[in-house]
Amino acid sequence: MTKIKIGIVGYGNLGRGIETALTNSSDMELFAIFTRRDPQTLVSDSRVESYDDLIKFKNEIDVLILAGGSQKDIPQQGPELAANFNTVDCFDTHSAIADYFAEMNHIALKYKHVSTIAIGWDPGLFSLQRMISEAILPIGNTYTFWGKGLSQGHSDAVRRVPGVKNGVQYTIPDQAMISEIKAGIAVEYSSAKAHQRVVYVVAEPDADQNEIAAQIKNMPDYFAPYQTEVNFISQAEFLQNHQGMPHGGTVIRQGETSPETKAIFEFNLKLDSNPQYTAAISVAFARATYRLFKAEQYGAKTIFDIPLGLLSNRDSEDLLNNII
Amino acid sequence: MTKIKIGIVGYGNLGRGIETALTNSSDMELFAIFTRRDPQTLVSDSRVESYDDLIKFKNEIDVLILAGGSQKDIPQQGPELAANFNTVDCFDTHSAIADYFAEMNHIALKYKHVSTIAIGWDPGLFSLQRMISEAILPIGNTYTFWGKGLSQGHSDAVRRVPGVKNGVQYTIPDQAMISEIKAGIAVEYSSAKAHQRVVYVVAEPDADQNEIAAQIKNMPDYFAPYQTEVNFISQAEFLQNHQGMPHGGTVIRQGETSPETKAIFEFNLKLDSNPQYTAAISVAFARATYRLFKAEQYGAKTIFDIPLGLLSNRDSEDLLNNII
Repeated sequence: MTKIKIGIVGYGNLGRGIETALTNSSDMELFAIFTRRDPQTLVSDSRVESYDDLIKFKNEIDVLILAGGSQKDIPQQGPELAANFNTVDCFDTHSAIADYFAEMNHIALKYKHVSTIAIGWDPGLFSLQRMISEAILPIGNTYTFWGKGLSQGHSDAVRRVPGVKNGVQYTIPDQAMISEIKAGIAVEYSSAKAHQRVVYVVAEPDADQNEIAAQIKNMPDYFAPYQTEVNFISQAEFLQNHQGMPHGGTVIRQGETSPETKAIFEFNLKLDSNPQYTAAISVAFARATYRLFKAEQYGAKTIFDIPLGLLSNRDSEDLLNNII
Repeated sequence: MTKIKIGIVGYGNLGRGIETALTNSSDMELFAIFTRRDPQTLVSDSRVESYDDLIKFKNEIDVLILAGGSQKDIPQQGPELAANFNTVDCFDTHSAIADYFAEMNHIALKYKHVSTIAIGWDPGLFSLQRMISEAILPIGNTYTFWGKGLSQGHSDAVRRVPGVKNGVQYTIPDQAMISEIKAGIAVEYSSAKAHQRVVYVVAEPDADQNEIAAQIKNMPDYFAPYQTEVNFISQAEFLQNHQGMPHGGTVIRQGETSPETKAIFEFNLKLDSNPQYTAAISVAFARATYRLFKAEQYGAKTIFDIPLGLLSNRDSEDLLNNII
């Protein structure tokens, strides 16, 4: 059987995760990693090529997975690449997804490609669970909790505070509130009430720790509305205990099938490595993307648009005999 | 807006649940309930018609939801009705789904209808979660637990034992094993090890309770491999505490994104009313079935084949702006 040939664009944590995830799928193979850095400088056993040469391999790659950031990389690369390749990306700026979808859909339809966007666990699997649970239980409320996990965006914000040498931020959901929702009790949810933020900072030797803590706690949007705890630790402790990228979360819909008759729909993820899991999702969606392309179902797609059996390495009959 | 017109075939617990669920969806309406009993004898505020007259309403019904049993009703009615109607059913005999799919697909394609089969929570939502979680994490193990909940099949088996006036059976999952799996610990799972069966029996006055308990506990397949507890109660207690039909369960995949790097995917349902929730799922799939029919995507479908955004009463743009 010919394997599905995947190109990875970008080689940060997500790109490395995709490289690893591909080794777990017998029907897919890595064609090459594409980087805007000097390809010689990348430490990888895989084939590495320059991003500038990507177009040369147009006919050799089945699906490109875009592993860059959502702020600058994807909004530029997505539309640029969708004309020549099938793509999967993990674009995760929720408020911009509708516009990005429209742009990608236009290009993908015009050039007869499939562009699967906003794939990961949130947006992605969590979106799917929110949507399904609401469709089944129109009377009810849906709650999303994130963590316990390391938030990359909030850690970046911490590191921009003057006097901070190193820092990480963990988002911790309110377990008591989760238990109440699971028990069918009505709660007053807001993102700020439902999560605590715990920060670990390595301060510069001459920095004022009180000033750093105050600056973090009062940062608008990021920290001000939340209960935030700031801990100062040594560089040694930082290197020993805060190098991982665990994450996860919960989606719960608390609904009623009839008055007073409750139904609780709950989805949980607990991930040792956030980027590796996001990578694993993107690889399964690369399989679906390729199959949609073969079926001439062109255009942009989100997790809502794809028959999800296409994610599986099992064929239809196998799914009906062994999984359903 | 014209509402999607639904016919319900059969008026047991599931049929009544569908009648209720339809009142929660503003874009759908009940056309009529169809019964093989004398329509006059049904206690319902809805329009009731005879099953024998169904064909007369061929052009007035958008989707029929088949609410009969999987043993005799669905295997006969599904193929009979798929020639003239779009259908949704909750056929749940796992081992027969592949054959039933082939039969329904043949008829639905021939007569240009959509037949959505095996919809519910298992098969159905649980199948979806098993499939997705495996596709994302090819290295790992998937576990399904049922309960705590009332098992209709096992309750029926209890009631067939001589001397049993009334009886129910609850399936109770091994919470310790679930906790171990969630903690990433390897377990030795078998359905019998993972579940306990708790039975409540109202015995006939002159019956030998030891004999009844022995007959239940030694019943092959149903009870013999399981740890089974049999409790004798009064008819009064039975009527007070054992009239509900709660159910639920858990699907967990314990996998690795790379060696030693774990990821836990967990899905839980906790339902006060098993038939009402199954009904609510079938109603959401009736919406998707109608949309597939309008898009001329004929044939039989399972939960693996349908772009799940079609379940939602929200349109694409709304989903991208508010749910994703």
